Amino acid sequence: MNPVPSPVLVDLKFNPERLAALLETAFEDRGSINLADPESRNTDLSSIDYALVWKPDADLFQRATNLKVIFCGGAGVDSILRIPNLPDIPIVRFVDHSLTTRMSEWVVLHCLMHLRGQHAHEKAQRHHQWGDMVPPEAADVTVGIMGMGVLGQDAAMKLTTLGFNVAGWSRSKKAVPGVETYGSEELDAFLHQTDILVGLLPLTAETKGLYNRGLFEKLRHDGALGRPVFLNAGRGGSQVEADIVSAINDGILGGASLDVFEVEPLAPGSPLWDLDNVFITPHDAAVSDEKALFAHVERQIGRFESGQPLEFLVDRRAGY
Amino acid sequence: MNPVPSPVLVDLKFNPERLAALLETAFEDRGSINLADPESRNTDLSSIDYALVWKPDADLFQRATNLKVIFCGGAGVDSILRIPNLPDIPIVRFVDHSLTTRMSEWVVLHCLMHLRGQHAHEKAQRHHQWGDMVPPEAADVTVGIMGMGVLGQDAAMKLTTLGFNVAGWSRSKKAVPGVETYGSEELDAFLHQTDILVGLLPLTAETKGLYNRGLFEKLRHDGALGRPVFLNAGRGGSQVEADIVSAINDGILGGASLDVFEVEPLAPGSPLWDLDNVFITPHDAAVSDEKALFAHVERQIGRFESGQPLEFLVDRRAGY
Repeated sequence: MNPVPSPVLVDLKFNPERLAALLETAFEDRGSINLADPESRNTDLSSIDYALVWKPDADLFQRATNLKVIFCGGAGVDSILRIPNLPDIPIVRFVDHSLTTRMSEWVVLHCLMHLRGQHAHEKAQRHHQWGDMVPPEAADVTVGIMGMGVLGQDAAMKLTTLGFNVAGWSRSKKAVPGVETYGSEELDAFLHQTDILVGLLPLTAETKGLYNRGLFEKLRHDGALGRPVFLNAGRGGSQVEADIVSAINDGILGGASLDVFEVEPLAPGSPLWDLDNVFITPHDAAVSDEKALFAHVERQIGRFESGQPLEFLVDRRAGY
Repeated sequence: MNPVPSPVLVDLKFNPERLAALLETAFEDRGSINLADPESRNTDLSSIDYALVWKPDADLFQRATNLKVIFCGGAGVDSILRIPNLPDIPIVRFVDHSLTTRMSEWVVLHCLMHLRGQHAHEKAQRHHQWGDMVPPEAADVTVGIMGMGVLGQDAAMKLTTLGFNVAGWSRSKKAVPGVETYGSEELDAFLHQTDILVGLLPLTAETKGLYNRGLFEKLRHDGALGRPVFLNAGRGGSQVEADIVSAINDGILGGASLDVFEVEPLAPGSPLWDLDNVFITPHDAAVSDEKALFAHVERQIGRFESGQPLEFLVDRRAGY
């Protein structure tokens, strides 16, 4: 441990003005080096202990050669794990109450918009038409969540409270009160009874391209919504966007809500923007709150330096 | 009590085809007379014990002169209480789990749409624009519910689960776990800290025109949403629509969601349809499920005939 604590190296590709302003008062015990600051361009980073990163510079780990821990600025670590010659040190994921509740807000909002026919209501309103449809109620619909970690379990609890039936699938089967859970070998059974599929999976070799036409065809097609709906707030790399477009156009899917995309920002020419009953949000379902992120990093550094185990460690082999 | 049970007189201005089909198998012990059926036009109704009505014919109570109980087909009874020479017999309101959960779906959906800036997202999507806004989270916002009966309390519980701060106002102050409640004398204090106002009040002499510009001006104007939002799923007669229009245009309100209107259906020429950040739904927030309604009526008739007290009795003086 250094006698003088080394500043936290920060390379977060967030809103730069906001980040710079917040860093002025963050990490008061040790300070920080903001890589977005032109003055840090030639700073010697070889004695830095901790890096907090989101989509970091390609040469970061060649410059900061003695890091002890890498903190990821978001819940998903795929962009970090892709970096060649990543040093073999602990990587800590961002888990935070605020991130979790925001994600659940998005999931509940979009499940309810599809349940209650918000797209049809909006269209009727645009035409000054007093509609006449009786949508099903939550108890008639099963939401199936893929990814039952902290985010998935919180969303499941809130959807259950709203009255939805909730099923959960995860690589290793979880026991969650009030939720019918499925493990890796039971994917088809899970899909067959799902009306609204919610993707909250990390991007790994196993989940790349997972949400494709073959999977959409396995969803329940005689449920109360008429046709199944696909929501993704996990990672865009897990979805095949050409398949989403054709599944909507062919009536395999009745709608979708997408917060993540194969390439972000989504290109202005993508056919996804104009599809019927498809809601697009700009990867803002669960925006990391910077202050909560800094507090999380300080807490984990405190644990690490006092000999306690780090929390929320990334399993590199599993990829999340 | 009649030796042969008298059929239930049904005068429900719901979807007529659907109603006729459902009545074929409803009330199997005593049957029903559907006033919408042309054959019933001249039927003698003087020996009928029970009427189930929603916006009933003006002459109904002149024809059915020996009713023992009136069952209302919805949660709001204002349209019945307005009828001149209404017989002085018990009136039973419709309270039902399905009605309650549907109303809460609508309330939670519209609170989340305003919280998460759905209107701005929809506009960005229409222009193929990748937006860049960080909405507040539920914990930064207080939802104030006016009307803390069965519907208000259920919505309050669900909004609390989503992370919103919730306050509740009612004529007689209620104690509700996790909700800051206010009574009739404390309306201003309630309004001053409310970011999203949810109207779930019955229409009575006291609530007519209650939601007007003066009330909107008392809502919190420096909250996390920037400007306050008004939701009404109670009764249209409680709102002054000209004031909603001017409050939106003048920036007193930042948005609204309206399921009820002074005159329904809302006229195609109403300025409400095109207001910025105003969502219109055609009085379908909590559609009465006919089967649940029939089961409720059968249950209450069973109680009445076995000498137990009727539930959900309307207080005529209070008006609900």
